[in-house]
Amino acid sequence: MARTEALTTAREQSTQTVETHADAPAAAPTGSSNKDADKSPAPSGKKPRSLYRHVAAYHSEMRHSSLSRESDETISFLGFRNLMVLVLVAMNLRLIIENFMKYGVLICIKCHDYRKQDLVLGSILFALVPCHLFVAYLVELSAAASAKQTVGHQKRTAEEKEHDQQRFRSTWRYTAFIHTINATLCLAVTSFVVYFYIHHPGIGTLCQLHAIIVWLKNCSYAFTNRDLRLAFLNPSANPNLPAIYATCPYPRNITLNNLAYFWMAPTLVYQPVYPRTPSIRWPFVFKRLGEFVVLSVFIWLLSAQYAAPVLRNSIEKIAMLDIASILERVMKLSTISLIIWLAGFFALFQALLNALAEVMRFGDREFYTDWWNSSSLGVYWRSWNRPVYLFMKRHVFSPLVGRGWSPLAASGMVFTLSAILHEMLVGIPTHNFIGVAFFGMMFQLPLIMLTVPFEKKRDPLGKTIGNCIFWVSFCLVGQPLGALLYFFAWQAKYGSVSRVSP
Amino acid sequence: MARTEALTTAREQSTQTVETHADAPAAAPTGSSNKDADKSPAPSGKKPRSLYRHVAAYHSEMRHSSLSRESDETISFLGFRNLMVLVLVAMNLRLIIENFMKYGVLICIKCHDYRKQDLVLGSILFALVPCHLFVAYLVELSAAASAKQTVGHQKRTAEEKEHDQQRFRSTWRYTAFIHTINATLCLAVTSFVVYFYIHHPGIGTLCQLHAIIVWLKNCSYAFTNRDLRLAFLNPSANPNLPAIYATCPYPRNITLNNLAYFWMAPTLVYQPVYPRTPSIRWPFVFKRLGEFVVLSVFIWLLSAQYAAPVLRNSIEKIAMLDIASILERVMKLSTISLIIWLAGFFALFQALLNALAEVMRFGDREFYTDWWNSSSLGVYWRSWNRPVYLFMKRHVFSPLVGRGWSPLAASGMVFTLSAILHEMLVGIPTHNFIGVAFFGMMFQLPLIMLTVPFEKKRDPLGKTIGNCIFWVSFCLVGQPLGALLYFFAWQAKYGSVSRVSP
Repeated sequence: MARTEALTTAREQSTQTVETHADAPAAAPTGSSNKDADKSPAPSGKKPRSLYRHVAAYHSEMRHSSLSRESDETISFLGFRNLMVLVLVAMNLRLIIENFMKYGVLICIKCHDYRKQDLVLGSILFALVPCHLFVAYLVELSAAASAKQTVGHQKRTAEEKEHDQQRFRSTWRYTAFIHTINATLCLAVTSFVVYFYIHHPGIGTLCQLHAIIVWLKNCSYAFTNRDLRLAFLNPSANPNLPAIYATCPYPRNITLNNLAYFWMAPTLVYQPVYPRTPSIRWPFVFKRLGEFVVLSVFIWLLSAQYAAPVLRNSIEKIAMLDIASILERVMKLSTISLIIWLAGFFALFQALLNALAEVMRFGDREFYTDWWNSSSLGVYWRSWNRPVYLFMKRHVFSPLVGRGWSPLAASGMVFTLSAILHEMLVGIPTHNFIGVAFFGMMFQLPLIMLTVPFEKKRDPLGKTIGNCIFWVSFCLVGQPLGALLYFFAWQAKYGSVSRVSP
Repeated sequence: MARTEALTTAREQSTQTVETHADAPAAAPTGSSNKDADKSPAPSGKKPRSLYRHVAAYHSEMRHSSLSRESDETISFLGFRNLMVLVLVAMNLRLIIENFMKYGVLICIKCHDYRKQDLVLGSILFALVPCHLFVAYLVELSAAASAKQTVGHQKRTAEEKEHDQQRFRSTWRYTAFIHTINATLCLAVTSFVVYFYIHHPGIGTLCQLHAIIVWLKNCSYAFTNRDLRLAFLNPSANPNLPAIYATCPYPRNITLNNLAYFWMAPTLVYQPVYPRTPSIRWPFVFKRLGEFVVLSVFIWLLSAQYAAPVLRNSIEKIAMLDIASILERVMKLSTISLIIWLAGFFALFQALLNALAEVMRFGDREFYTDWWNSSSLGVYWRSWNRPVYLFMKRHVFSPLVGRGWSPLAASGMVFTLSAILHEMLVGIPTHNFIGVAFFGMMFQLPLIMLTVPFEKKRDPLGKTIGNCIFWVSFCLVGQPLGALLYFFAWQAKYGSVSRVSP
């Protein structure tokens, strides 16, 4: 029907000239719709809108589905990343609820098995261990005095120089001997006391860690000062010491203040001079300490409420050698151990070390790099714990390579030393040298060699595969298994660790 | 001591002039290392290497920790994205193992409660329902004949034109009436049969879905042809029909072939002409069909093995009104229902519709856009199911707005219609009109209004928050709850659905 007055304009009109039909559930058909029903609004200059709504051509061009391979648009999958996070949160919330329904609240502050002896011995060790640094200082002081004396005798004949060399050699032998005894004692005494007299593994681990850190600092102090002394004694050989040391040349760095700074500084490599920040930002310090405390409490809660029941339940399964159950237990433990480990990393390397660095006005805060993106195990070990990595590189790897060792052999020595220290760190406080930490560290070398090809890949897929291998071997399989085994060893020796009755 | 011959060159030398100490566990101190121990190798032109390894200045500049706020480098967290995927896989693998340990294999092909009557009635309905399209075709044929007749009488006086208008109006009334009866019957007969005579919800849902699709196509065919007829009858009014229709102008599109193409085409909006691909790529078709079959089997396996036990276990919990348990059950179900829904989306919209479009040489394959990135519920409803969205927009929303309705009121009508259809789709096959689907759809409108602000945000964080709200409200809360409730209603009426004995 012709409605010329309605059709000559493009304005909206709502005249209805056809009665609606009561039965039609959809909008009643009319003929008066005269606005464009094309998909896109028609601005001036474009095709004018059709008068009829129901004829709009919604299919007018060839298009591909977004997920088809032939689609040329780059599709964003950010929505799925958000979904993954939400699902992870939901799944873990569910596990929290399930755990609460099964066990109630397992956290019990009074249940911790502290013996008074543990605390006393631990405090004594904490006070005693740094004294070894003082002994090292005294040794260096005498060595520096000897060196100054040697340098003082500028004009010497060849025989006198040879005599000086011999005397210096024996002095050095003496120095090195004292240093070795001192450092070894530092480690040996603590290890002995922790193994035989400190029952609580937490306190034992803290003492052991402290002793190992001081031992490493001791070694660095001794080695660095030896090389500084050699450079001091041979200025004509153009030693090319780093420019930053110029403000405190040997032997002016052998002071108690200098050593005390090194003792407290968040690094294991001794330098006479460090880059320094101008001032202490106390809000920063308190924020970092707050993060550390919160994360420590969080880790403690997680261990008591979630890790302990899983560990305990695993014991019967392992006894029955039910492979499916063991696998299921390891997987359940892997999530918890991963969270605990990530929280522990952040607490130590990001929070505590930064707080310490700020208080000490220590300038180089690179305690870790982006190890989570590691495309191989090698990258990981170079990234996640920079203080230990720098120590190993400067005082073990680099000198060995300088002596003619191949990089592979030098790496082998680094990891052997690391394996020994790890076994001491874990085995002594738990009073069980089961060797898992040792062989775990030694096994890193073949793993590193296996994953080196992924490190060199440039394409994102290759790097992703390497990264996944890293995560699975290290965090999803390696650590939970290790934790499980040390826990069993403890159980076999001592009994339960939480309030849950067996 | 002076070792001039060793120190004057920068080559590696391995002469050892100081005996090693047996006690020192680290590399024995030597003085012969004369390669640079600085962190970076020294290419020509850079600072020459220090002769002494142990003095390398590893801390020489101010650096921030990567995760500190003051760090100015942009850190990549791709490693954590990989970790999230691995943890999700590990957690779900664990649930699979746990499910297998608890229930064994629940999948049982013979256990399905098929009644012969269901299959027979279902087949009859499948054959019968498209006949309504044929009826619609006949109606349109007669209307087209009438229109052609009208147009044939070119020169008319005013009274004759008025008479023509009246006659056309009554013809249209008659046409619209037949169409309405036809379409309503299509839907009503199927609904009646499915509700009262088809027991199995799966078969019932397929029949209901088929009837609703044919009903929508019927409506589209009727409305589009009506507007085409109006345009045909009023050529002077410059109807601005889409250019693509020029190859098949009304009434040449009223043919059985044309209707049959529309019947089989993967779209709900009728057009006389569609964009067409040149040929059928059969490998593409078989690949898509293969994907569809694999995903369907996957969904069936998931439902029987994982969804059914969770649903069954939930019944007792809901009876006890234990909130924590209900929450825990909903969360456990949400992961499974999410996977089933994503798989179902891919199976239907990506695999099946693309296969159908390829066979029909249908050019516009945009059955969905990137709904997973939706920053609001409104974006989601416009993106995930384009066929239905285009139908609603072209035949409900756009005409209503043209008649003067506000967009809000028109949206209200769209969602009301959608809610009714959803309730029919879910409630009729399960023989339970509990209204959850209806109110779920109606509730989308306030949700859309609530989330509109996030849609307009430009910053990534705002979009991410909107996206998370979408996922949580729709996939993690909305659907599992809905599925749970319909399952309970079924249980209340009929009893168990899988082999697991209660």
